Amino acid sequence: MDQLLAAVDLGSNSFRLSIGRVEQHNGHAQIYAIDRLNESVRLAADMGPDKRIHPDAIKRAVTILQRFNERIQGFHPNRVRAVATNTFRVASNREEMLSVAEEALGFPIEVISGYEEARLIYTGINNELPPSSSRRLMVDIGGGSTEIIIGRNHQPLLLSSLPMGCVSYTDRFFGTGLITENRMNQAILAARREIEVIAHQYRKAGWQYAYGSSGTAKGIEAILVGKGYSKRGITLEGMNKLRKKLIRDKKVVAEDLPGIKPHRIPVLAAGLAIMIAIFEELKIKTMQRGEGALRMGVLYDLLGRDSDRDKREETVIQLSKRYHIDLKQAQRVKQAAIALFQQLHLKPSPDTEDLEKALGWAADLHEVGLSIAHNDYHKHTAYVLGHADMPGFSRDDQALLAFLSLGHQGRIDKLKHHQPSRSEWLTLLCLRLSVMLMRRREDLDQLPIRVQVDKNGATIFADKQWIAARPLSEFSLRTEQSEWAKADFSVKLVYKKDLTTLDTATS
Amino acid sequence: MDQLLAAVDLGSNSFRLSIGRVEQHNGHAQIYAIDRLNESVRLAADMGPDKRIHPDAIKRAVTILQRFNERIQGFHPNRVRAVATNTFRVASNREEMLSVAEEALGFPIEVISGYEEARLIYTGINNELPPSSSRRLMVDIGGGSTEIIIGRNHQPLLLSSLPMGCVSYTDRFFGTGLITENRMNQAILAARREIEVIAHQYRKAGWQYAYGSSGTAKGIEAILVGKGYSKRGITLEGMNKLRKKLIRDKKVVAEDLPGIKPHRIPVLAAGLAIMIAIFEELKIKTMQRGEGALRMGVLYDLLGRDSDRDKREETVIQLSKRYHIDLKQAQRVKQAAIALFQQLHLKPSPDTEDLEKALGWAADLHEVGLSIAHNDYHKHTAYVLGHADMPGFSRDDQALLAFLSLGHQGRIDKLKHHQPSRSEWLTLLCLRLSVMLMRRREDLDQLPIRVQVDKNGATIFADKQWIAARPLSEFSLRTEQSEWAKADFSVKLVYKKDLTTLDTATS
Repeated sequence: MDQLLAAVDLGSNSFRLSIGRVEQHNGHAQIYAIDRLNESVRLAADMGPDKRIHPDAIKRAVTILQRFNERIQGFHPNRVRAVATNTFRVASNREEMLSVAEEALGFPIEVISGYEEARLIYTGINNELPPSSSRRLMVDIGGGSTEIIIGRNHQPLLLSSLPMGCVSYTDRFFGTGLITENRMNQAILAARREIEVIAHQYRKAGWQYAYGSSGTAKGIEAILVGKGYSKRGITLEGMNKLRKKLIRDKKVVAEDLPGIKPHRIPVLAAGLAIMIAIFEELKIKTMQRGEGALRMGVLYDLLGRDSDRDKREETVIQLSKRYHIDLKQAQRVKQAAIALFQQLHLKPSPDTEDLEKALGWAADLHEVGLSIAHNDYHKHTAYVLGHADMPGFSRDDQALLAFLSLGHQGRIDKLKHHQPSRSEWLTLLCLRLSVMLMRRREDLDQLPIRVQVDKNGATIFADKQWIAARPLSEFSLRTEQSEWAKADFSVKLVYKKDLTTLDTATS
Repeated sequence: MDQLLAAVDLGSNSFRLSIGRVEQHNGHAQIYAIDRLNESVRLAADMGPDKRIHPDAIKRAVTILQRFNERIQGFHPNRVRAVATNTFRVASNREEMLSVAEEALGFPIEVISGYEEARLIYTGINNELPPSSSRRLMVDIGGGSTEIIIGRNHQPLLLSSLPMGCVSYTDRFFGTGLITENRMNQAILAARREIEVIAHQYRKAGWQYAYGSSGTAKGIEAILVGKGYSKRGITLEGMNKLRKKLIRDKKVVAEDLPGIKPHRIPVLAAGLAIMIAIFEELKIKTMQRGEGALRMGVLYDLLGRDSDRDKREETVIQLSKRYHIDLKQAQRVKQAAIALFQQLHLKPSPDTEDLEKALGWAADLHEVGLSIAHNDYHKHTAYVLGHADMPGFSRDDQALLAFLSLGHQGRIDKLKHHQPSRSEWLTLLCLRLSVMLMRRREDLDQLPIRVQVDKNGATIFADKQWIAARPLSEFSLRTEQSEWAKADFSVKLVYKKDLTTLDTATS
């Protein structure tokens, strides 16, 4: 049982559950999919200009997720990862949708950025293909977004997520079901306009093999081969034949199209238009099917988190470099913050582990904003961490880092509208105290303060002798206390002769 | 007359007008101050927690500025620069204040960032000191902020603006006029807390000579020397004697303090506290008086803009490097944007020149946000350009760049609440069209479109033959047209056989 992992992919067109078994071969882990559920949900269907997920779509989603829950309810939360993509990214009623979905699934759901989605898709397809050092182009046309990636070995080199998908383009260009030459042309042009921006860079980078991984790619390939429009794989010539046929028929005549799955009928024309646009702009000659995609990427990523290869660690290192972080200072702040956090003795749980990790990363990156401006740099850090492409991090992860960054100095009451949980407030307190202690950018022999959780908040114990010699630190601690009072969070300040007596009491 | 320049410095404590005469010596320009007005305004006085400039302060400000106007009303706008500092940066009724102030002065007023203020102060003091390759520390305690700079030759190396000033600290710690030991200590600790953050870096960088340039520094020096507390310059020992005397007297007894100017009496204690804190944190031994400061910095900067040494050009180059801009693409977009702008034939004026410059810089920097994330990068560019430390740029300059960046792609109606002027809309149109034309990142032999201003907006003329072969470009132009319609700005689209006939018509 503990060798099983589960990935749930809440796409705009389908929801998928994949269960994988991990096997070790010569120290290299491989995942074998042992169970799969794939359910059409068309979540982005009938989304008006107000970008609300339709109540019917929510109902469909809940039913499917309850079914998934039945299959994975015994899994340890560390071995399940559920990711949601474009429709969740753009929906105005996203919060409502998320909370009913999480309840139905029984596990937390992460909304991931397009960039992260692209990265996971690359990981997924690449792991399912035989190892090769060729450059590979991967295209995944989803319901609401399309990911296009070039990579080599385990390394994605170019990652893009474009706002076009077979469900959203169906609504925009083929809403009535009628297929005409003009509509087809409009859809292709709209898609080309999106791709145009990245085309130059991708063509310049080049690739040896192109893979299409989504239902759209598989569906088109099945039809092209079935109709004899193409011998093998997807070609522009073959797609143009299909395009002509659809325009001639004015709709999708399923009996005429061998291999088409019923739930793909309504989105075929839009998917075809997007794929034609991609072939035209990138000048692709032929495309093969790629397996795995997002769901396998999520499983491999989950495997990495379990081992020492958490992608997020690498991302934090990259960002530290890109923003020329003072690494020594980051390390000082991190060590102190984690030490204080451990003194809180929060209940061991996946949530507590996540908070501790987030605290460490926030400490690593709290000075990112200095590269924009010194003034209010904490706000700039929060902006960057809230918006940057950060491989491995979900949107919620990034929101938490942004919250901690924004709060790591200055007024605290500005954060009240975030409605942080008690543990989040406590985590922020640890970060603030450690930033405060390290303001001089000098190493301290030992921490002159301890923190303890109490009923209404926390108590800071400060070394009496240390503080007596440092009026500035005392002033800072008192200021800190009154800042917390303004945020309605009680922080007591106690001077103590010997802090080590506390260790005995709490250990 | 054309060798005269004027600088107006709207500080939080005083407003100053300086008129300088430019003289060339061996190809090196030197400015001689030929006229100066210095008026106490205490603009930040009585600012409540709502951060509103008090109506009485506004009245005082207007009276002074009208007086200034009398002296400089004949100057060409290119030869006058008025800058406003901390109180304008933080006031909640800043817009109202700015508009009455500009009317009274008769010239536009730029609100500059603390970083820019620090840079100009360095330029000002440095140009008034004899040339030397020593490292110089400069301290300027203003009414609402204090600038601390280390530089060498013409190059500032460290620039900081800290939120503490003799007026704001007077309100915070000496509001009643009573001076006690406790209040003095609190004020010093609060100031030390601000300086603490930069102290390590500054002490590490080091300096040979320290200069104090503000009224606070001059006032303290005069008193220390006059009372015999110090032989020459400002010392910590001397200041501690003055501090004891003030605490003993419980207030500033002017008769006892030789050399104190009447308008400095109320702010002496706060200024002294800040200066003591600076000496303690930076471990300064002795400080000399520096002349010039902000007002001379503004004059020298103005001189640079007139020649080929516009600081802003250098800043744009620095930012392009820091954010790894694709320089070729930036150049393509800039060339096309400027060519289109010139086709508008806007009325020649300083405003039009400023817009053209801003357009060029926005083109140079429009891809800055890509370094944060590809998705919505135009928003990230706007954020960075709106918040970055950009030497030479005023806040309004930066706001205009942010507006152009935000609008350079995507929806236009999101910009309506900026209430852009007609010329600003037209400038944005030029940027958008050039970004659109250059999306493929390939050089174009010649521009296939022209723009002309008309009564309600603009007309785009597109080369008929060129467009006929490029359905994607046509689609993009039509999309562009409908985007402008949503923003209630008329953009007509006309296909023309021969664009060169337009040149004859308009030239």
